[in-house]
Amino acid sequence: MEAIKIGLLGLGVVGQGVLKILRENQDVIEGRLGSRITVKRALVREIGKPRKVSTDDILLTTNVEDILDDAEIPIVVEVMGGVEPAKAYITAALERKKHVVTANKELISKHGLPLMKLAQSFGVTLRFEGSVAGGIPIIKPLQECLAANRIQALMGIINGTTNFILSKMSCEGREFSEVLREAQERGYAESDPSSDVDGHDAAYKLAILASLAFGTQITPDKIYTEGIRKVTPLDIEYARELGFAVKLLAIAKEVDGKIEARVHPTFIPHSHPLASVNGVFNAIFVKGNAVGDLMFYGRGAGDLPTGSAVVADVIDIIRAAHITPGAPIPSGAPASAPAGTIPFASWNGEVSVADINSVETRYYIHMQVIDRPGVLASIAKAFGDSDVSLESVIQKGRGENPVGLVFVTHRVREENVRKALKLIEKLPVVEEISNVIRVEE
Amino acid sequence: MEAIKIGLLGLGVVGQGVLKILRENQDVIEGRLGSRITVKRALVREIGKPRKVSTDDILLTTNVEDILDDAEIPIVVEVMGGVEPAKAYITAALERKKHVVTANKELISKHGLPLMKLAQSFGVTLRFEGSVAGGIPIIKPLQECLAANRIQALMGIINGTTNFILSKMSCEGREFSEVLREAQERGYAESDPSSDVDGHDAAYKLAILASLAFGTQITPDKIYTEGIRKVTPLDIEYARELGFAVKLLAIAKEVDGKIEARVHPTFIPHSHPLASVNGVFNAIFVKGNAVGDLMFYGRGAGDLPTGSAVVADVIDIIRAAHITPGAPIPSGAPASAPAGTIPFASWNGEVSVADINSVETRYYIHMQVIDRPGVLASIAKAFGDSDVSLESVIQKGRGENPVGLVFVTHRVREENVRKALKLIEKLPVVEEISNVIRVEE
Repeated sequence: MEAIKIGLLGLGVVGQGVLKILRENQDVIEGRLGSRITVKRALVREIGKPRKVSTDDILLTTNVEDILDDAEIPIVVEVMGGVEPAKAYITAALERKKHVVTANKELISKHGLPLMKLAQSFGVTLRFEGSVAGGIPIIKPLQECLAANRIQALMGIINGTTNFILSKMSCEGREFSEVLREAQERGYAESDPSSDVDGHDAAYKLAILASLAFGTQITPDKIYTEGIRKVTPLDIEYARELGFAVKLLAIAKEVDGKIEARVHPTFIPHSHPLASVNGVFNAIFVKGNAVGDLMFYGRGAGDLPTGSAVVADVIDIIRAAHITPGAPIPSGAPASAPAGTIPFASWNGEVSVADINSVETRYYIHMQVIDRPGVLASIAKAFGDSDVSLESVIQKGRGENPVGLVFVTHRVREENVRKALKLIEKLPVVEEISNVIRVEE
Repeated sequence: MEAIKIGLLGLGVVGQGVLKILRENQDVIEGRLGSRITVKRALVREIGKPRKVSTDDILLTTNVEDILDDAEIPIVVEVMGGVEPAKAYITAALERKKHVVTANKELISKHGLPLMKLAQSFGVTLRFEGSVAGGIPIIKPLQECLAANRIQALMGIINGTTNFILSKMSCEGREFSEVLREAQERGYAESDPSSDVDGHDAAYKLAILASLAFGTQITPDKIYTEGIRKVTPLDIEYARELGFAVKLLAIAKEVDGKIEARVHPTFIPHSHPLASVNGVFNAIFVKGNAVGDLMFYGRGAGDLPTGSAVVADVIDIIRAAHITPGAPIPSGAPASAPAGTIPFASWNGEVSVADINSVETRYYIHMQVIDRPGVLASIAKAFGDSDVSLESVIQKGRGENPVGLVFVTHRVREENVRKALKLIEKLPVVEEISNVIRVEE
């Protein structure tokens, strides 16, 4: 039986995952789709390089034109990562009326809207389920299954590396740097870990989710981003005593007509479904005005989980565009791009993203102070003068000097907390403000 | 602006939810879809009955023909429940080339395949996302997002009433009958609770999920079904001591080419994501050979959650069939039914469902025995003679007579457990076998 042929741009971890899935699950895919799918050509950097998967039945090339020029290939799968040359290749593929599937979070978060408009203008589709949270279905659920909802908020654990590190620190009471080293040794963190631990990877993914949820393009540069380097075992211990877990959350909410979009370490109550998402697992919590609270949980990365999302997109395109083997570009078929609307820019136009200073939430504030009478009064006054109302104060480590003081505020504006901390920093009795972590419900 | 018009069969809880969502979220739906959707006609039992929602702009009728005959209505939404007359009405709608959306789990689980074949033969679509787990997207994820996976297993908490009862019994140590009464008073359980508490509702939903997951129709009569009436606070306490939560699980697995499909109270480890799904929440855990472990969590019932799923199906049909206001049945459009394959019967043909006797799992067995020397030896011999190997034995309530004995077995075949229990029942020292509950990982 003849197969529908696709081209791969890149044959790294995800590309090999796609190949394995198409081979190992050929029978179930054919059963569900009615057709077989095979990889005809793949773009690689080096043809002779040893690989874990057999490439005997694939034409490897170092020239992208070999794939773009192949009239037998109706769908191109981009799994190279990074903005360029991926963007140029995808643009060229769309212009030649090839459908494109990508797992490229950085590219879609920064340039998704113009690329989707380009796809629409050529009557083809650009899909990107694999770009967020690996195998967890979240792009399609947001676009389709929740299409009847006004999305009120979403909160996600969407970076496995930082969740692995925080989970380990939490279970074993170990320091960030030590656990990071272990994660690097086990292959869960890159040798340059900054994209993960500084929150950028999560910000790319949040930009995509927030754009879909709120119908307006929100690029990563609009997202307030803070990583986990400053989180200490002591913060995690205090969190636990107060009833919270510490997670790197990606949060987007619609508040008073503006979008809040931020990535930062967060205290969440132990009873929250996200609190028990541990290790390299990802989860995305969504609140819709009809559906209520939902959570999607699973593996956020890896060859097969991400490959699962990529192949699902390929199958979707084949179904929607009525592609059949041997007749890859159906003559007279309707344009398969969504009728009239484009995901990132459906209806909200230019909605503005709220400044971090105007965000209202609760705060955990941990500081080291000289233990003597009157200290608490002077700190409390600084909070009061800045309109920051306190929910609880705990003094840790009695008899030591300096001594730890932990505050949890009521809901207050970020700018008021910043004002208070500036005043407090200047107090002679305050040795240091060790950490400030936002608290969500 | 003109709207796309739909007809409702039924205006109960879910029907009113659909109406509320179409009204309150009109702007977001229009933004995503490019068109408005309104309810033109609704079939009701009694036109004059007072309702919580306004029906001023809807034509109410007691005659289904008014809806089926209306050429302006391309989509009919069935939210009456029960097999008849829903089946007759849906059949008639499909035959008149109307697309149908239903939330009817009993109907789809028993007659889904012939109805989908009928839809396909008339070039229209039958969708049923709302039939399982309310607002949680699970039908579409199984059919589309996980299309590249061989599904290995799924386990779900898909009945909110029993999960509410078991959660309450677990938190408060109360008896089943007492908590059931409270659930009835709070509207979480029907006055005749048997469909929920005896597991039938969960079996309908599992039949649908298993049919989609394994590509073969599995009807509810093939599903081994056991309810929660026999679960006692003592069982729950023992479970907790052993590290388990007690949940009514709906389980389907492919084992050695056969499908296991069963609904029964189950011990699951506290560390399992399903263990912390409490109250009326639902969750479905899915294991795919590419994607690994996934979980979908949310509200399994209610007017707006189920309405959210129903309206999403309506939006999907409008997008796929290119329906526009004023031109409800697009001329020359391709049949919108899935190309060549039908969800329930894609590729597996007639796969057989395993008999409960051949199921292999672990078992918790609680019995009351006379406390005297040699008792344990005689019971252990009966287990051994039946090839049931024991993982742990705990004697509860020392000095009482009779005394509680709790066994947890290793993985064994159900028929061996049943054989052992027959032998044990006859031992004069055994007062009663109080409960047998399966244990899953």
